[in-house]
Amino acid sequence: MHLNASDISQMEQRYRANFINTLSGFKSANLIGSVNLAGQPNLAIVSSVFHIGAHPPLIGMIMRPHTVPRDTLQNIKDTGVYTINHVHTDFVKAAHHTSARFPEGVSEFEEVGLTPWFSSTHKAPFVQESRVKIALEAQDIQVLALNQTELVIGQVVEVIVDEASIKTDGYIDIEALGSTTISGLDSYHQTQRIDRYAYAKAGQPIETID
Amino acid sequence: MHLNASDISQMEQRYRANFINTLSGFKSANLIGSVNLAGQPNLAIVSSVFHIGAHPPLIGMIMRPHTVPRDTLQNIKDTGVYTINHVHTDFVKAAHHTSARFPEGVSEFEEVGLTPWFSSTHKAPFVQESRVKIALEAQDIQVLALNQTELVIGQVVEVIVDEASIKTDGYIDIEALGSTTISGLDSYHQTQRIDRYAYAKAGQPIETID
Repeated sequence: MHLNASDISQMEQRYRANFINTLSGFKSANLIGSVNLAGQPNLAIVSSVFHIGAHPPLIGMIMRPHTVPRDTLQNIKDTGVYTINHVHTDFVKAAHHTSARFPEGVSEFEEVGLTPWFSSTHKAPFVQESRVKIALEAQDIQVLALNQTELVIGQVVEVIVDEASIKTDGYIDIEALGSTTISGLDSYHQTQRIDRYAYAKAGQPIETID
Repeated sequence: MHLNASDISQMEQRYRANFINTLSGFKSANLIGSVNLAGQPNLAIVSSVFHIGAHPPLIGMIMRPHTVPRDTLQNIKDTGVYTINHVHTDFVKAAHHTSARFPEGVSEFEEVGLTPWFSSTHKAPFVQESRVKIALEAQDIQVLALNQTELVIGQVVEVIVDEASIKTDGYIDIEALGSTTISGLDSYHQTQRIDRYAYAKAGQPIETID
């Protein structure tokens, strides 16, 4: 099937959303924890979190201002902090439930059955059930002129992770921790490692790590 | 294990790269096809491709100017076009091999054993072996001031995909097509669907799609 720009623009809106959301490939599955100025915690599933750089440690995410995680975006703007928490196989349904439009003043944590947890140094709530908890400080928030979404870039200031899952070279085995991945808007997947490959060299076969 | 900003900044460089690259969660696995002004094709694996929006259909990717895909970035700047091709389970090793530093003038396609394929309307090469082929026109390229990486945003102008993999609601079953996902810098994974979930509503249990 060969589609051009005009075919895509003529798709029914919901059909196009499903179609285009799968094109970029598998996405990360994370819960964003934040808090408003009154101290009310908020939790939202986001599939748009991506790596930007390791030094300084920067993580980006795309926020659509008119969809459900808008409280999250406002909280980040107001407080400057948030958390990223991996979604694992044992609570994907609860994680997906955070995307519902709950009445204002309702805590998504309570509604979906996840537990807010606070470190001594960070204002935003972590998800206690998550085995990869990351605290971030917003460094830059910019509107992308092409479609008015907002790119939030945060610096990692705290990481809470099971030491046994960190390999000797620093790689965290997020598959062993049960982290999931998302395709499209609503499909959740677990993973099965094919291999880790060593640094590739021209003219030499690829070697497997471990 | 509880790490703070100072612990992270004191990590050995390669260790930190592995560690931070796994934090954001699973990543997409794509090969970027491009061509220079002399018509020489280039192919590079990139794990930083992410969805930005469906209407207009926009896909972003982060490019590190000083690492291997720098030819790709230059080609996109010179020609304005590129392709994104999903990496499937049957050619992950070849895909990873494109990250080697091949001498200038050498085609990564030939070196790793993948086949360039051209549509009648797009200048950049697709990967014939890929079951999800996307042609893009660059819309915006900006340097992120925080770490000097470059954010490339492209608009989808052509999609070539097996019709049987598209569900009635527009969702492309990229798992059935064998698309892979990456964790960290070098770990490739296949996926196994947990479930697709319907639009979440407050106070109602989550329903499965299909």
